Amino acid sequence: MPGRSPRLIQGIGDDGAVVKAGAGRALVVTTDLLVEGIHFLRELSTPYLLGWKALGVNLSDLAAMGCRPEFYTVNLALPDSVTEPYVRELYRGMKRLGDRHGVVLVGGDLSSSMTGLMVSVTAWGHARRRALVYRHGARPGDLIYVSGDLGGSATGLDALKALGDRRRRQVLRAAERAQPPRGRGRWILEAVTKHLAPQPRVGLGAWLGERGLATSLIDLSDGLSSDLLRICEASGVGARLDEAAIPMAESCRRLSRDPLRDALHGGEDYELLFTVSPSKEHALRRFPGLRFSPLRKIGTIERGRRRIRLRTAEGESLPLKPGGYDHFRAAEPA
Amino acid sequence: MPGRSPRLIQGIGDDGAVVKAGAGRALVVTTDLLVEGIHFLRELSTPYLLGWKALGVNLSDLAAMGCRPEFYTVNLALPDSVTEPYVRELYRGMKRLGDRHGVVLVGGDLSSSMTGLMVSVTAWGHARRRALVYRHGARPGDLIYVSGDLGGSATGLDALKALGDRRRRQVLRAAERAQPPRGRGRWILEAVTKHLAPQPRVGLGAWLGERGLATSLIDLSDGLSSDLLRICEASGVGARLDEAAIPMAESCRRLSRDPLRDALHGGEDYELLFTVSPSKEHALRRFPGLRFSPLRKIGTIERGRRRIRLRTAEGESLPLKPGGYDHFRAAEPA
Repeated sequence: MPGRSPRLIQGIGDDGAVVKAGAGRALVVTTDLLVEGIHFLRELSTPYLLGWKALGVNLSDLAAMGCRPEFYTVNLALPDSVTEPYVRELYRGMKRLGDRHGVVLVGGDLSSSMTGLMVSVTAWGHARRRALVYRHGARPGDLIYVSGDLGGSATGLDALKALGDRRRRQVLRAAERAQPPRGRGRWILEAVTKHLAPQPRVGLGAWLGERGLATSLIDLSDGLSSDLLRICEASGVGARLDEAAIPMAESCRRLSRDPLRDALHGGEDYELLFTVSPSKEHALRRFPGLRFSPLRKIGTIERGRRRIRLRTAEGESLPLKPGGYDHFRAAEPA
Repeated sequence: MPGRSPRLIQGIGDDGAVVKAGAGRALVVTTDLLVEGIHFLRELSTPYLLGWKALGVNLSDLAAMGCRPEFYTVNLALPDSVTEPYVRELYRGMKRLGDRHGVVLVGGDLSSSMTGLMVSVTAWGHARRRALVYRHGARPGDLIYVSGDLGGSATGLDALKALGDRRRRQVLRAAERAQPPRGRGRWILEAVTKHLAPQPRVGLGAWLGERGLATSLIDLSDGLSSDLLRICEASGVGARLDEAAIPMAESCRRLSRDPLRDALHGGEDYELLFTVSPSKEHALRRFPGLRFSPLRKIGTIERGRRRIRLRTAEGESLPLKPGGYDHFRAAEPA
């Protein structure tokens, strides 16, 4: 039961909250919580990578509104076992990613914690109101696009869990240094990096917004099947996905025990999923970041029930249930 | 080492971060973290009162910038032991206080927690840039004012700890209902209410800002001695406090084992402390909320070293060290 305000454009129920901020402008705010033991295990990451990811998921949320991020604040709850160098590394990871996108830390709160480590980041940006893209704008006939490739993050998490301590430390060090993955451990490093240091699609989100190209937009935090269903539910439409067109991460194809499951349902790839009218599809070719983040058509929005159907490589049409995990993300206050 | 942006007016080091937002306007953002076992004990409060306070401390921070709060987001980390009705009550407490000041919940994140309950609130508002008041504007000769009275919150915390379980539950229930405190337990209830359901001075903060009356402004979260020293340090001045003028809460005077200590050093009263030029002092009499929140002159800003001297009732002048507690509040990232 959130309240109402004449200045509120979008409250709970999208990737960020939107409020009016001057003539034709809007402020977009997003916030995310990473809790030790729930969202991460300290031994499966490094403080630098944890900082990167804590900011990254928020930048991804703003990108998923079509808004360029500008500032952020950080609240940390620190157990005794967390040392000062650990905290410094955590800030360094956030700063590195922030610097890359011109996003500036402006405040926050530090507390001790009786128990686990918690990182709560709030990020915001301003945008033209007309540039913002919501989940609810998909129309029957729109084409479904996704950036980058899928399944790498889930593959990386599994790989991290399976590695021995010594090898894991090596991989984590390499992921921190953003070493170009090559040689024997190439695919493991690529998947682990995707999981621990996701690249929020900041440029793509702002570009789609400014050009008015996307009719709906969301980031892939819980998995393609879950997040596409959110667009369907918000827009009152159905969707058909084309299995053969799903861009699977090479690491996922090579390492995953079930590559299709990880690509369809694996969470935390932080790619952008969006819909575009067929009449505007050609304009996507002009996205300047195509070299780093290819855009691929994976299906179509359909009239009718809010569900997803998957056309398999064999030509069958199967119902696709949301299968991503969901640690209460986007849950609404009671 | 926060970054820089041409749009950033005030980063870390005041009650809120300030960024430019349109011609002559600014966005002010503040965020606070309440951690179970550090900032609160579940058994010494109720979910409703915890929600009230979690939002209240943020509204107080915005008031301390001279900014009227508009919106907020909430991140909750919930251990298994926290039930759905508990969470509903927590939101109800926030909503009740938010409604009182026209502040609207617009989003947030829920997570489970392996361990304790954590509440992280981010709140913001817009204001004319010229209306904002910082910690750093106090000038020698300015008069030091404080709203309301002091020491009630520290007294309330001590009382809560001393009460037996049954009596404590009664007092908590009465505090929730905001019953007018009277009769035998009047002072206990008044102090406990001050501690658990502080009244952020939203109207006063915005009024001081809009009228351009305060040269510096802060809210009393860590105690008069600590927070006045922050003004002194930010402004490069000293201060003299007049012991006889310190407004002591009646509950503190009657119940505290050391009333002066609680009034000078006790935290979490969430009153506003500000400085005003003698030439503008007369205008304070026109504050429309005087009936609910009297304003009292308690000292003077002085040239010289950044320290506080206390003139006792006996006419002595003693150095006053900051003695408030400090759970890493306002600590800067390394």
